[in-house]
Amino acid sequence: MHFTSESSADGVTQRRFTLDGVPGVLWQPDGPPPGGRPLVLLGHGGGQHKLVPGLVDRARRCVRELGCAAVALDAPGHGERPRSAQDERFATEIGELIAAGRPISAWVARHTAALAERAVPEWVAVLDALGGRAEGLGPVGYWGLSLGSAIGIPLAAAEPRVAVAVFGLTGHPSQTEAAERVGVPVEFLLQWDDELVLREGALALFGALGSREKTLHANPGGHLELPEPQLLSSERFLARHLGRVE
Amino acid sequence: MHFTSESSADGVTQRRFTLDGVPGVLWQPDGPPPGGRPLVLLGHGGGQHKLVPGLVDRARRCVRELGCAAVALDAPGHGERPRSAQDERFATEIGELIAAGRPISAWVARHTAALAERAVPEWVAVLDALGGRAEGLGPVGYWGLSLGSAIGIPLAAAEPRVAVAVFGLTGHPSQTEAAERVGVPVEFLLQWDDELVLREGALALFGALGSREKTLHANPGGHLELPEPQLLSSERFLARHLGRVE
Repeated sequence: MHFTSESSADGVTQRRFTLDGVPGVLWQPDGPPPGGRPLVLLGHGGGQHKLVPGLVDRARRCVRELGCAAVALDAPGHGERPRSAQDERFATEIGELIAAGRPISAWVARHTAALAERAVPEWVAVLDALGGRAEGLGPVGYWGLSLGSAIGIPLAAAEPRVAVAVFGLTGHPSQTEAAERVGVPVEFLLQWDDELVLREGALALFGALGSREKTLHANPGGHLELPEPQLLSSERFLARHLGRVE
Repeated sequence: MHFTSESSADGVTQRRFTLDGVPGVLWQPDGPPPGGRPLVLLGHGGGQHKLVPGLVDRARRCVRELGCAAVALDAPGHGERPRSAQDERFATEIGELIAAGRPISAWVARHTAALAERAVPEWVAVLDALGGRAEGLGPVGYWGLSLGSAIGIPLAAAEPRVAVAVFGLTGHPSQTEAAERVGVPVEFLLQWDDELVLREGALALFGALGSREKTLHANPGGHLELPEPQLLSSERFLARHLGRVE
């Protein structure tokens, strides 16, 4: 883990890094890190990257209000990372399909599954690297919707260090098998009028999650219209399970 | 409104009353009531009554923690009220149908719709009576699941004084028309493995609610297995919309 820059604002230190060529950002409180602080992994949505404003706001709240550290990575083909010919095709074709009013969920699922196969080992490497530092690794939560869930669900299925997760805005039968292997508490967010995800698919994916403790929160509106109070309360769900709030 | 008894414990005064022959209970903080205090209407479930322990706990939390008053009524055919021949038949037959593994949702919907027709004007009379007292009526919320929603949904559709509601554990096409006329913020609770309510029916009822602001919270478990934290957070949903908490 090679740190490349550091800045601080309002008590939060933001450090950019690369790990095996993958660019990421780590947010922590200013000052020397104590041991065992909880860590929130932040997965961004499709077409976004590790420093989009909503994600940075969430990271800063995780540090300032919930007493956690937070980390984000650029997903394969996103942010500062090179795009493969397949990534380029995807970015072009999804716009065309939406414009043509064609169903896209199977096609999106196929592409994001390919991204997830590359992204899951990258997150595991981040946990290994952070766990190898002097302060060690506290309990870990994952927060990611849409592409962030397409990556996070197989990550949580494979990685026992992930202890709690917020998922949502996704749902395709190809994700069922990984979902069944998730056993940690999950809050799953669904947008009732999601134009990119079939409602039945999202409900079925929630149903498939193997977690004994799981809760589905559905609200009206489209894929990008999640109500702000719902986003904030999902962060508190994570923090509660990481032992940071009541 | 004729008050028949009064007791007090831990700062909460509980007063039993009858109104046009309907028995009810009013919970308020000890001492003279200030004007404009929010009021929570508590609808009980089928086979329950106005003083079942879960409802009394909820009423006392409304008073002590949320600064509201609370009121409950025995639904028609419940608690201290006489049972009609139809009520008796219902109580017998539902057990038989469940034991035989027969579908009951249409049959429950028909019976509870008949109860709701009688119960809605009774709640309206309670609002009139409390509004006519010296302290007047503050903002009103409704909390009721299952039979409490079968009554609460047509009440909220008809009664403009109801400003926010918690519904759930119900869902039949016969409720759609009333749900479409509900316009206030609603939190709707669904049990994923509800043995008395079809999941698709509950989801469709949530979808039908005319409210611009509505949120569905679904959790694993059967009709009577709603997680305690979900119950508590639904009370805070009411209190937030009644201006009592952030």
